[in-house]
Amino acid sequence: MKALVYHGPEKRSWEEKPKPVIKNPTDAIIKITKTTICGTDLHIMKGDVPEVVDGLILGHEGVGIVEEAGKGVSNFRVGDKVLISCITACGICDACKKGMYSHCETGGWILGHMIDGTQAEYVRIPHADTSLYHIPEGVDEEAIVMLSDILPTGFECGVLKGQVKPGDTVAIVGAGPIGLAALLTVQFYSPSEIIMVDLDDNRLNVAKMFGATKLVSKDAVKEIMKLTDGKGVDVAIEAVGIPDTFDICQSIVAAGGHLANVGVHGKSVELHLEKLWSANITITTRLVDTVTIPMLLKTVISGKLKPKQLITHHFDLEDIMKAYDTFGNAAKEKTLKVILANK
Amino acid sequence: MKALVYHGPEKRSWEEKPKPVIKNPTDAIIKITKTTICGTDLHIMKGDVPEVVDGLILGHEGVGIVEEAGKGVSNFRVGDKVLISCITACGICDACKKGMYSHCETGGWILGHMIDGTQAEYVRIPHADTSLYHIPEGVDEEAIVMLSDILPTGFECGVLKGQVKPGDTVAIVGAGPIGLAALLTVQFYSPSEIIMVDLDDNRLNVAKMFGATKLVSKDAVKEIMKLTDGKGVDVAIEAVGIPDTFDICQSIVAAGGHLANVGVHGKSVELHLEKLWSANITITTRLVDTVTIPMLLKTVISGKLKPKQLITHHFDLEDIMKAYDTFGNAAKEKTLKVILANK
Amino acid sequence: MKALVYHGPEKRSWEEKPKPVIKNPTDAIIKITKTTICGTDLHIMKGDVPEVVDGLILGHEGVGIVEEAGKGVSNFRVGDKVLISCITACGICDACKKGMYSHCETGGWILGHMIDGTQAEYVRIPHADTSLYHIPEGVDEEAIVMLSDILPTGFECGVLKGQVKPGDTVAIVGAGPIGLAALLTVQFYSPSEIIMVDLDDNRLNVAKMFGATKLVSKDAVKEIMKLTDGKGVDVAIEAVGIPDTFDICQSIVAAGGHLANVGVHGKSVELHLEKLWSANITITTRLVDTVTIPMLLKTVISGKLKPKQLITHHFDLEDIMKAYDTFGNAAKEKTLKVILANK
Amino acid sequence: MKALVYHGPEKRSWEEKPKPVIKNPTDAIIKITKTTICGTDLHIMKGDVPEVVDGLILGHEGVGIVEEAGKGVSNFRVGDKVLISCITACGICDACKKGMYSHCETGGWILGHMIDGTQAEYVRIPHADTSLYHIPEGVDEEAIVMLSDILPTGFECGVLKGQVKPGDTVAIVGAGPIGLAALLTVQFYSPSEIIMVDLDDNRLNVAKMFGATKLVSKDAVKEIMKLTDGKGVDVAIEAVGIPDTFDICQSIVAAGGHLANVGVHGKSVELHLEKLWSANITITTRLVDTVTIPMLLKTVISGKLKPKQLITHHFDLEDIMKAYDTFGNAAKEKTLKVILANK
Repeated sequence: MKALVYHGPEKRSWEEKPKPVIKNPTDAIIKITKTTICGTDLHIMKGDVPEVVDGLILGHEGVGIVEEAGKGVSNFRVGDKVLISCITACGICDACKKGMYSHCETGGWILGHMIDGTQAEYVRIPHADTSLYHIPEGVDEEAIVMLSDILPTGFECGVLKGQVKPGDTVAIVGAGPIGLAALLTVQFYSPSEIIMVDLDDNRLNVAKMFGATKLVSKDAVKEIMKLTDGKGVDVAIEAVGIPDTFDICQSIVAAGGHLANVGVHGKSVELHLEKLWSANITITTRLVDTVTIPMLLKTVISGKLKPKQLITHHFDLEDIMKAYDTFGNAAKEKTLKVILANK
Repeated sequence: MKALVYHGPEKRSWEEKPKPVIKNPTDAIIKITKTTICGTDLHIMKGDVPEVVDGLILGHEGVGIVEEAGKGVSNFRVGDKVLISCITACGICDACKKGMYSHCETGGWILGHMIDGTQAEYVRIPHADTSLYHIPEGVDEEAIVMLSDILPTGFECGVLKGQVKPGDTVAIVGAGPIGLAALLTVQFYSPSEIIMVDLDDNRLNVAKMFGATKLVSKDAVKEIMKLTDGKGVDVAIEAVGIPDTFDICQSIVAAGGHLANVGVHGKSVELHLEKLWSANITITTRLVDTVTIPMLLKTVISGKLKPKQLITHHFDLEDIMKAYDTFGNAAKEKTLKVILANK
Repeated sequence: MKALVYHGPEKRSWEEKPKPVIKNPTDAIIKITKTTICGTDLHIMKGDVPEVVDGLILGHEGVGIVEEAGKGVSNFRVGDKVLISCITACGICDACKKGMYSHCETGGWILGHMIDGTQAEYVRIPHADTSLYHIPEGVDEEAIVMLSDILPTGFECGVLKGQVKPGDTVAIVGAGPIGLAALLTVQFYSPSEIIMVDLDDNRLNVAKMFGATKLVSKDAVKEIMKLTDGKGVDVAIEAVGIPDTFDICQSIVAAGGHLANVGVHGKSVELHLEKLWSANITITTRLVDTVTIPMLLKTVISGKLKPKQLITHHFDLEDIMKAYDTFGNAAKEKTLKVILANK
Repeated sequence: MKALVYHGPEKRSWEEKPKPVIKNPTDAIIKITKTTICGTDLHIMKGDVPEVVDGLILGHEGVGIVEEAGKGVSNFRVGDKVLISCITACGICDACKKGMYSHCETGGWILGHMIDGTQAEYVRIPHADTSLYHIPEGVDEEAIVMLSDILPTGFECGVLKGQVKPGDTVAIVGAGPIGLAALLTVQFYSPSEIIMVDLDDNRLNVAKMFGATKLVSKDAVKEIMKLTDGKGVDVAIEAVGIPDTFDICQSIVAAGGHLANVGVHGKSVELHLEKLWSANITITTRLVDTVTIPMLLKTVISGKLKPKQLITHHFDLEDIMKAYDTFGNAAKEKTLKVILANK
C-alpha cells in the first residue's frame, strides 16, 4: 500500500509500505476512506517530537472501513464504517477506567507517533473495541473526520475543563483550527460573550462567522479588560501553546474564573502566583481523551454542531505531499482543515 | 480600650485606643473574649503588606460577645456569643451571591488589614449578619477561635479545592499551622495516605500525631515518587507560599491530579507546562471565603474535628506583646497557635 | 392606590387599598410599572391555596421603580428600575446561605400569598437587597417580567435539576407557560432532541416554533419509547402537576436518567420502585429559588434567551379583571403570558 | 465439581456439576477459594426472582484463583488471585462507558441469576478483564469477599448517591448487612450524626459498635424529627425495600436533602409529591455498578475500612446447605455475613 512516511526533520515521502496485519487479537485493520493533517504533524515534520522515528507513517485522524478484525474484537465486524479516535485506549487500565484514555497504559496518543498512523491506505488500530466508533448511516464522513481529534480536543480540553456556563464571558486565545473547534463547541453552553483573540485578521473573520461576538487582534489584555469593565473573563481558553498567549490568559481571568489550557507547550511559563494566589481561579491542562466522541456524534446528527465548517480544502490521498504544503502554509492559503480522500 | 497597634515595620505596641462605635446600620460592636495571632500578622510586622497603615489595630480572628448591634442587624442581639470570620461579607454583591465572600465588593479580608482588627478589647464588625456566626451553648470557645481563619483556610483552599476522595494519596507541603489545618480537615474524606513534607522534624512529629501516614523532610520529590511507585499523588496541597514548595507540588502531582495552592506567594513561580500540558491536572488558588464555617462548626460539635490540638500556648490579651515574640519564634518555642484571653 | 384583591374562592376585585409603607428597615416600596398573572393565581382563585386570606392583594411577579427604601437597604436607591423576584430572601438564614431562597426562614414565596403582592400600583418588598434585581439600561421591561418567576422556574426546577447535557434527549410533559419556559431554557445546553408532550395542538405548535424537535399528543409513553428506540429519554421534565403526567415521566426515563418535577402537585403519586429501584435514576423536586436571575439576565441581554416569545396579550393594569378572564381561558384565547402595564 | 444448585422455590442441593469451560475468548475460569451468601439468594430461594431457572448454580460473590484465561483476556493470567464483581461488565457498550456497569448490554447482574454463579468450586466469568480485580499481596481474602457486592452496594447506592458531606445528619433505615455496609462506608465522609433505624435491637447494637451515633427502633419518623429539631435529615438511606421504610425516608428528609434508595422493592410506593414538590429534594435509585471496587480496595488496604466486621460465621464450602440455614435464620443466629471456604 501507499503511505506518508516520515524520514527525519523536513523529510517525508508518499511511498510504498507493507499493508498492516493483525498483531494482537484486539487489533483491527481499517481501510482508510478519509483522513486529514493535524498541526501536530507539522510539529513532527519540524523535528519537535523526537520520539517519532524515521520510517513511521504519520497521521492520527480518519474514517474508514473495517478490513479485518482480531478474534478479541467484539464490537466491530468486517465492513463496518468507523471513526478512528486519535487516542488508543485499552479500556481496562486504571487510567481508562477513570475515563482518562489519554493516559492509557498501553495506548494514549500512539498513532502516527509511536506506531504507524492513518495517512495511508490501511492502518492497524490496537484495542479496536475502545478506539473505534461506529458511524451511523447517513452521516457525512467528512464531518466525522473532525471528530477524531480536533473537535474533542477543543471541547474536552477547552470547553469542558473551562466549565463554561450560560451567560458566561469566554475568551479564546488563538483562532487556529483548535481555537475554532473550541469556539464551535463552547456554543453548546450558551455563553453571552465569546471574545476571540488572534493576530491574523482572516482567522478572526472566520471566528466571527463561526459565532464569536467580539474580536481582538492587538493589546489583548487591555482590550479584554475594557470589554469586561475591568472584571476579566469567566473562562480563558489557551489555544496556542506559547508563554505569551498563556500570559494573556492569566492576565484576563476574573476572580473565580477558569483558565483552560489546550495548547501544546514547548517551554515553561511564568505563573503570577503573587497576584493569583488569592484570585480563586482554576487552571487546567488536558490531553484529549476523546471520551466525548459519542456525545459529539449526537450533536452532529442533530445539527447542533456543523464540523464541515472547519474544512477548507480537499485532496486525493495520493496528493498528500501537496496537501502538507497547503496546510503548512495556512496563513497564505487560508487553510483550516484539509480532507484527504482515498479513492 | 487597649489594643495591639501597628506602627510600621517591626514596630507595634499595646496601647490605648478609642472604643469603636457603630458607623453603619449593619455594623456590630463585639467585646473580644479570645483572639489569636496569624502568620499573616507576622508578614504585616515585616512590612510585607504595605496597605496596612501606621496606627491600625491588627488581628482578624476571635470570638466575643455582641456589645452593640446596628439597626440593620437582624441576626444578632446584644449578649450573643459570636465567632468572628476573618472575612467580612456583605452577602449581596455578585461575589457574595456566588459564595465567594473573599471577593466581597465592600468586604473580604479587611479586619486588621484595611480597618481596625480583633487584637483589642473591642472591635467593629461591618456587615455583621453575614460576618459573624452564633456559638452554640456548651462549645469550647478556644476551639472556635480556630474557625475564624486557619481551619476554613486549610479546608476550603486545600481540601475542598483539592477534591480529596476516599482512598486518595495526598501530600501536604508545609507542616506549619495552615498545613496542619489542612491535615486535620483532609481526614474528613478518608484518604489512604497523607504524606507530610517539612524541613522541621518537630512539626513532622506533630503531623504524625495529627494523622499523617508518611513524613518527608529531605529530597521531597524523589521520596514521594518512591512512596507512590512513581505515580505521584492524587492531591498536592501547597501550604508554604514560595517557589520551591510550589515546585515540589508540580513535580509530584499524578496525571489527573489536583494541586491546591494555599500558601500566600510573594513571587511568581515557573510552571512547567512543557511537561504538564498533557497531564490532565488542575491547579487552584483561593483566598479563604469562610463559607464552610457552619459545616466546620458541626464537625467540631460532633467531635470529628478537634481544633484545640492546634493550640500550644495561652496568654492574657494584655500580654500580647510577649505572645507575638513566642509566636514569631515558632521553631524554638514549638508554637502552633496561641490563645489570647481578654479577662 | 388600586389593587387586585382576593375575596375568597372565585371572588376578586380591582379596588382601592392603602399605599404600602416601610415596616422594617430592609423593606423597599416599589411602584409597579409592569406585572403579570401566574397559573398559581388561578389556583388561588379556585380556593386551592387556603393560606391566602380574604383581602390580600395577589401577584408575585413584576418590574417597577424604587419609590422608597428602608435605612437597612444598601443595594437600591429611590428611582432605580428593578425586577421583583417571586421569592423573598433574607440572604442570611441557613437556607439562603445554601442558595435555597425558596426555604428562607422569613421569606420564600410570600408575595401575593402571605403578604400583599404585585398586582397593584405599589408593593412593599421585604429583604429588598436580596429580593430585587437591577434592570440594566436598554433592556426591555416586558421581557424582564418573565424573569420574576416563570423562566427561573422552568430553568432551575426543570433544566438545572434535570442536568441536561449536549446531545441529550429531553421530554417536557406539559406545554403550558412553565413547560415552554423549560423549553426555551433547555436549549442553553444543546440537547439533540426535545420532545414536547401536550394534549393541546395549539400549544404543541407554539412549542415547535420555540424549538421542540418532536411533538406528542397521544399515547405519550408508547410514542416516546418508539422515538427513542425503546431506550427512553435522558431527562423527563414534569410541567403539569398531576399523577398522569408524573406517570408518563417515570415510564419514559432511561436508565441513568433524570426526572425533574416542576409541576405543583395536589395529590400523591404512585412511584413504581418495583421497576425503578435498579434503574439508576434521579428524581428531583424544587420550588424555584430565583438564584439564577443574574445568569438569566445575561442571557437575555446577549439575545440567547428571548422571553417576549411567551407574551401573547397586553392590558392596562386597570383592566386586570378582564386580563384574568383572558388568562383563565387560555385554550380558547391562546394565551400564554399577559403583560399588565401601569400607566 | 460440586456446586449449590437451585431447583425451584425452596429447593436447593449441593451436587455434582460439570466444571465450567471457556466459551468466549474474553472468559476466564476461576477456582473459588472463598464465597458467601447474599440476601438476594434468599429471595431467589423464595421464588421471588422468576428468571432464575431450575438447575442454575447460585452465588454472585467471591474470591479465587484464575484457572484458565481466554485468548482475549489481557489483564489476568493463570494463578492470579482475583476478586469477582457481582456485576459483569463488557466495558465497551454505552452503559459501561458511562460507568453504569449494572446496565451492561451483555452483562450486569448475571452471575447466579442468568448464568451459573460462584457458590461452586469453579465459575466461568465472562468479560473477565472488566469483571475481575487483582487482589494485592497480603490483603485478607475474607475482607475482600465483602467487596464483591455488599460494600459497593451500600457505598454506591447509599452513600455516593446520597451525596453525604462532612457535618451532615444521615439516617439509615434498615440495619441488615446492606444498611451496615452503608454505615461503614458513610463514615468516609465524616457526617456528624448517623441515625440507625431498625426493629431488631441486636442489629442496632451492632450498628452502634460500627459507628452509629443514634439508634431508633420505634416511632421512627417522630423520633428522628425530634432528634433533628424538626428539620429532618440531610440524607435518608433506604436499605430495606418495602413501602413502610420508604415512607419513613420520605417523611424525614429535610428540605434540600437526599433520599438514596438501596433496597430491592417488590411493590410500588406512594410518593407524597403534594408535600415534596416544593421541598427541593433528590430521590435516587441505583443497582450497584461496582465501579468503586478499586477505591474501596485502597480504603481496605489503608485500614480505613474494615470489612471483616461484617463476617459473623464461617463454613466449609461443602457445608453450604447448613450455611444457608444459618444465614436464613439471621435474627436468631445473629448472622450478618457468612464466609464459605473451598478447602
